[in-house]
Amino acid sequence: MHPGGFFLIDCGEGTQMQLRRHKVRFGRINHIFVSHLHGDHVFGLPGLISSYGLLGRTNDLHLYANENLEPLLRPWMAFFSRDLPFKVIFHQVIAERQQLIYEDESLEVWSIPLEHRIPTVGFLFREKAKERKINKESCAFYKVPIKWMPHLKRGCDFIDENGNLVANDRLTYPPPPSKAYAYCTDTRYSEAIISVVRGVDLLYHEGTFLDDQEELARKTFHSTARQAASVARGAQVGRLLLGHFSSRYKDLTPFLVEARSVFSNTDIAVEGGVFEV
Amino acid sequence: MHPGGFFLIDCGEGTQMQLRRHKVRFGRINHIFVSHLHGDHVFGLPGLISSYGLLGRTNDLHLYANENLEPLLRPWMAFFSRDLPFKVIFHQVIAERQQLIYEDESLEVWSIPLEHRIPTVGFLFREKAKERKINKESCAFYKVPIKWMPHLKRGCDFIDENGNLVANDRLTYPPPPSKAYAYCTDTRYSEAIISVVRGVDLLYHEGTFLDDQEELARKTFHSTARQAASVARGAQVGRLLLGHFSSRYKDLTPFLVEARSVFSNTDIAVEGGVFEV
Repeated sequence: MHPGGFFLIDCGEGTQMQLRRHKVRFGRINHIFVSHLHGDHVFGLPGLISSYGLLGRTNDLHLYANENLEPLLRPWMAFFSRDLPFKVIFHQVIAERQQLIYEDESLEVWSIPLEHRIPTVGFLFREKAKERKINKESCAFYKVPIKWMPHLKRGCDFIDENGNLVANDRLTYPPPPSKAYAYCTDTRYSEAIISVVRGVDLLYHEGTFLDDQEELARKTFHSTARQAASVARGAQVGRLLLGHFSSRYKDLTPFLVEARSVFSNTDIAVEGGVFEV
Repeated sequence: MHPGGFFLIDCGEGTQMQLRRHKVRFGRINHIFVSHLHGDHVFGLPGLISSYGLLGRTNDLHLYANENLEPLLRPWMAFFSRDLPFKVIFHQVIAERQQLIYEDESLEVWSIPLEHRIPTVGFLFREKAKERKINKESCAFYKVPIKWMPHLKRGCDFIDENGNLVANDRLTYPPPPSKAYAYCTDTRYSEAIISVVRGVDLLYHEGTFLDDQEELARKTFHSTARQAASVARGAQVGRLLLGHFSSRYKDLTPFLVEARSVFSNTDIAVEGGVFEV
């Protein structure tokens, strides 16, 4: 959630049903970020777009994805969702290097180059630095006029009518911390990810296999739980959310045990779970 | 279910999840019949085909649908499901007239022209006449040789070594009845349907609205529960299964009451329900 609307990352088959089941007001999704063009990450798009049409959506819908998505999706939209009452705007994301792909007054979204069988990116959501908070008592004492407040919030000092300088930190409190969240799937273990996600509050990283299948993980361009935890530890993130488990595993406890042995603040991403950043 | 594999009619988004949830061995589906090209009847196809690829399916998959499906689906298959280990074979179904679209040694499938906003067909599944059952005692008494049995099963009489004719019905029992099932959605009320589905054991017919919305049903090319029941009564079917209810209705009891006032042997099609023909 963000003042500009909800963000959705990837849209596999049945996404709209999941959103309905978990009572997400999905009409407020204005931006969809697609990590890569494997079916389980995009097959929900025709249905979601079609439902938006039936629901009378009028807000633009922005899709951030590999360049091949638009020529695949446009003919389906033209056939199944003629005369949509809203615009679908495609933004091309390249996988070769980190890019700023979205920006508004309070948030930036960056792509993160990943290592998968096809061009794949992760996404880094980073709040911009927030404004400092006014210390009203102190401002009253120094007789700071109202028109100075915006400058104070941005960190400027105050010069009173006698030419005396009052340092900003005597008139304001520090801003609330800017949060960051990174989403990395599907990917092989990659050291390059560490520098990009350094210090984020929450890292979602795939851990498809357990450590004893490290070779299979490498070959299939997926990660193990231990590798995901290594990224989390190396990047000194606040918390690791582990997901994208192979369906061969019925019990996820070993994933948690393995990851926590490397990075203790790890949790398992469960369907419908809500994780505060 | 049929010796040639399962048949699936329509494939909306999430069909494969539904099949898994209800433990249908969906790998045995060899024939998919698509009534019309609205998204909620086809958006599950890319995912189902993709899953078949991952599961290593090798049997041909036959799709019976409007001619526009193939050019829409092929580019998605080429991109998302390269090198499928099985063939997908498209069979073009026209909506203008009733056609025999599938046939094997024991079953015929006919299209049923319906009245919807776009070209739409229903499907009539009709078992062929089955073989008569041998009356072993009687055959022993008349000394019918083994090689005559196939003729007897097909209804031929027997002529013994002295040239005496023994009528078939003295040597056999009648065959088990041949069953028929018809599926009609989406459609406006149409008298033409009645003659096509006459006498089927089970008729699935849409009843999107209740009688008080007959005008809306007509305008949107859907049927009311009463109209569906009128088709069932007119065609003297064995049983009516009513489905495709508008999401505006939370309680389906009025549909049952309305339909049963016209045709008593009516039931509501519930998700995951199993209905024997």
